[in-house]
Amino acid sequence: WARAVRGLLLDVSGVLYDSGGDGGVPIAGSVEAVRRIKASGLKLQFCTNETQATREKFVKKLQGMGFDISVAEVTAPAPAACRILKERSLRPHLLVHNALIPEFAEIDKANPNCVVIGDAAENFTYANLNEAFRVLIGMEKPVLISLGRGRYYKETDGLKLDVGAYMKALEYACDVQAEVVGKPAKMFFESALAEMGVPPQQAIMIGDDIVNDVGGAQRCGMRALQVRTGKYRPCDENHPHVKPDAYVNNLAEAVDIILQQL
Amino acid sequence: WARAVRGLLLDVSGVLYDSGGDGGVPIAGSVEAVRRIKASGLKLQFCTNETQATREKFVKKLQGMGFDISVAEVTAPAPAACRILKERSLRPHLLVHNALIPEFAEIDKANPNCVVIGDAAENFTYANLNEAFRVLIGMEKPVLISLGRGRYYKETDGLKLDVGAYMKALEYACDVQAEVVGKPAKMFFESALAEMGVPPQQAIMIGDDIVNDVGGAQRCGMRALQVRTGKYRPCDENHPHVKPDAYVNNLAEAVDIILQQL
Repeated sequence: WARAVRGLLLDVSGVLYDSGGDGGVPIAGSVEAVRRIKASGLKLQFCTNETQATREKFVKKLQGMGFDISVAEVTAPAPAACRILKERSLRPHLLVHNALIPEFAEIDKANPNCVVIGDAAENFTYANLNEAFRVLIGMEKPVLISLGRGRYYKETDGLKLDVGAYMKALEYACDVQAEVVGKPAKMFFESALAEMGVPPQQAIMIGDDIVNDVGGAQRCGMRALQVRTGKYRPCDENHPHVKPDAYVNNLAEAVDIILQQL
Repeated sequence: WARAVRGLLLDVSGVLYDSGGDGGVPIAGSVEAVRRIKASGLKLQFCTNETQATREKFVKKLQGMGFDISVAEVTAPAPAACRILKERSLRPHLLVHNALIPEFAEIDKANPNCVVIGDAAENFTYANLNEAFRVLIGMEKPVLISLGRGRYYKETDGLKLDVGAYMKALEYACDVQAEVVGKPAKMFFESALAEMGVPPQQAIMIGDDIVNDVGGAQRCGMRALQVRTGKYRPCDENHPHVKPDAYVNNLAEAVDIILQQL
């Protein structure tokens, strides 16, 4: 599975670092692994569903942990959503995390004709959900754009409902299907590949999420590895629908194998 | 459609009265219509999805508007849920309206092994939703009981998401299917019929909700009328799946026609 590779797509949380506490801790060997990928001449793009911060802040956090990473190397849902909004002249009502709002600074938000929902965390109040719902139900043909479809995630103070759960609530109430931006959407992986200029057949996705990373990338024609770090659980290896091209213990091991084949 | 009737099931909100403001206003002719049903000797049961108040409070409000109604005549989701909880030795974590909590006074709630969700309104906070989610996801086989599956409803200050939307959020996050108590669940209509001692072939449901009242009752073998009051909208008459046995302008008109046939 490691042959004829020209580019790598890396998930971030759970592959580069474990989140929690005051930001997170690098996973052993990952800082060095990113450096080795870059030194090898392989193309590299980071592909994240992170929507609790702007890419600027997110990259700064990773640089602070020692990672060689820049904003241009990060494919994230909010900028992808902004491209869609511009292309289709959509003016969003935003139900997102406060820290994400600057990503939409250049977007016209007056008199909204769609709703964009992200992992709004504490902004998922009864009042805010009703407000987003009213904007949607008031449209002749409701347009709901969701920054991911995650079910839940873990923080230091426990499990939290992710954006996908709130997306489902609005979908049901308005009898509409959300357009998902972010993994596992095909268009999202394709835009990351386009950034690298590498066709799917020559790219490998490395992630910890069996459905959103591995399944999504494979549906685009890429190979995909699951790391046994982050949200990986042993029962993932019996997943009824998705089978990675290989399992690796962590990013460092994946990079070892791939670089040997070059 | 009005022949060989022995019992009537009446929806309450939108059929007897319109909610809003400080409680609601009787729909013209409805107080008298209830009186005429009782005088005719027909069996009568009220069948509501109301979960923002105990039956006691709900009945008191209706009596205050002039309706001849008693607690025993009301089939509502919370008491139905209590029967299920007792039968199956389930101890609920409650995510419901504060005013509904007394309905569960006699139910053991220690060390919960299921979640009961109702229209919790202001109690649908981010923290409370995460808490209900954690209780569910922590179970080997999550049990979610939902007091209705409504999408939304109208109050004087605007449209509000109903319990069904939050039910869908938890269903998706926990990959579980909720057990719905209340209309349109078959068992709920059947328990209302049992209260009257009338078989479905001899009963008519009268409601304003094309799916939950009309569709639900018809699936139980009952006839069902839609009134053109309450949440009725002209587009209901083109519903792709549900066709009432008849439309009537309001409850009074339905009772006129039914009593003529006796």
